[in-house]
Amino acid sequence: MQRTRFDDMRCPIARSLERVGEWWSILILRDAMLGVTRFDDFQASLGIAPNMLTRRLRALTDSGLLERRRYNDKPPRYEYVLTPRGRDFRPVLVALMAWGNRHFADEGPAMQMIDELTGEVVEPLMVDAKTGEPIDRARHSMHAGPAADERTRARVEQYVQRRAQQRAATEPPSQ
Amino acid sequence: MQRTRFDDMRCPIARSLERVGEWWSILILRDAMLGVTRFDDFQASLGIAPNMLTRRLRALTDSGLLERRRYNDKPPRYEYVLTPRGRDFRPVLVALMAWGNRHFADEGPAMQMIDELTGEVVEPLMVDAKTGEPIDRARHSMHAGPAADERTRARVEQYVQRRAQQRAATEPPSQ
Repeated sequence: MQRTRFDDMRCPIARSLERVGEWWSILILRDAMLGVTRFDDFQASLGIAPNMLTRRLRALTDSGLLERRRYNDKPPRYEYVLTPRGRDFRPVLVALMAWGNRHFADEGPAMQMIDELTGEVVEPLMVDAKTGEPIDRARHSMHAGPAADERTRARVEQYVQRRAQQRAATEPPSQ
Repeated sequence: MQRTRFDDMRCPIARSLERVGEWWSILILRDAMLGVTRFDDFQASLGIAPNMLTRRLRALTDSGLLERRRYNDKPPRYEYVLTPRGRDFRPVLVALMAWGNRHFADEGPAMQMIDELTGEVVEPLMVDAKTGEPIDRARHSMHAGPAADERTRARVEQYVQRRAQQRAATEPPSQ
């Protein structure tokens, strides 16, 4: 029931969550980015129940994030390989990792990204590719796109109004 | 039961999902970024059942992503405002939005980010703040951090080995 509701939503975040909005799916994608391809290896890494893993792999395959490939004929054995769409999910994982390391790693990072050219720990930062500027609440704001439905449009327009009010309230009166 | 398991994991992605790894939570954060603060407004925007919304708001408050503030005394009324930790989740939402617009928006984007200085649609890109270089599979790779447990270390070390093998296989033989 929840699936149908989310699929109906026009918001790109809701649409994405429809495909991966479940802990196990995201951790399966994490492992796939680390090069895990086989059922047993996913299971060993995640400690997930086999029937749950089967279901999640099928959902990720159905959504076009993983491709199921036969790697052995007798007996038939399959592996799960990231598609371009699945690989394109990497920035979400990197953003989640950075946030987790910043806020929920009192004992220090358990996983981090390294720049292999410099050997330094990467500091992930989201920028606008067009300008190179960091994405910033003051400069970059959400707007309804051409395909927005009524609800999305209403939600985002309220936001634009709120921002305008906040600015009017914080700007000095004009002379 | 699932909660406990995820909290035990040392991986920063698993730790983050522990706090927000549920569709509704992420959509609540989306709306909070758009400036929604009140129960009725979240409900109208999300079409979520009130008891579910109550539970999700409490979980996000307990995890330190939202702060519950009284804005009216008689009758007592509360609003939910993003904390710095909650606001810091924005790059994850931006990455999800970009991915959704790229892969699941056949009719065009329903929501997009605009650079208010240029009026142009933002192209979110993850870079390393230290070098300004886009994060790239060939250059930036995952490693175990100082606080990694056995399982995380094993998972990431296998990945480092796989990468080395792939390189050896694709590099031309030395002369």
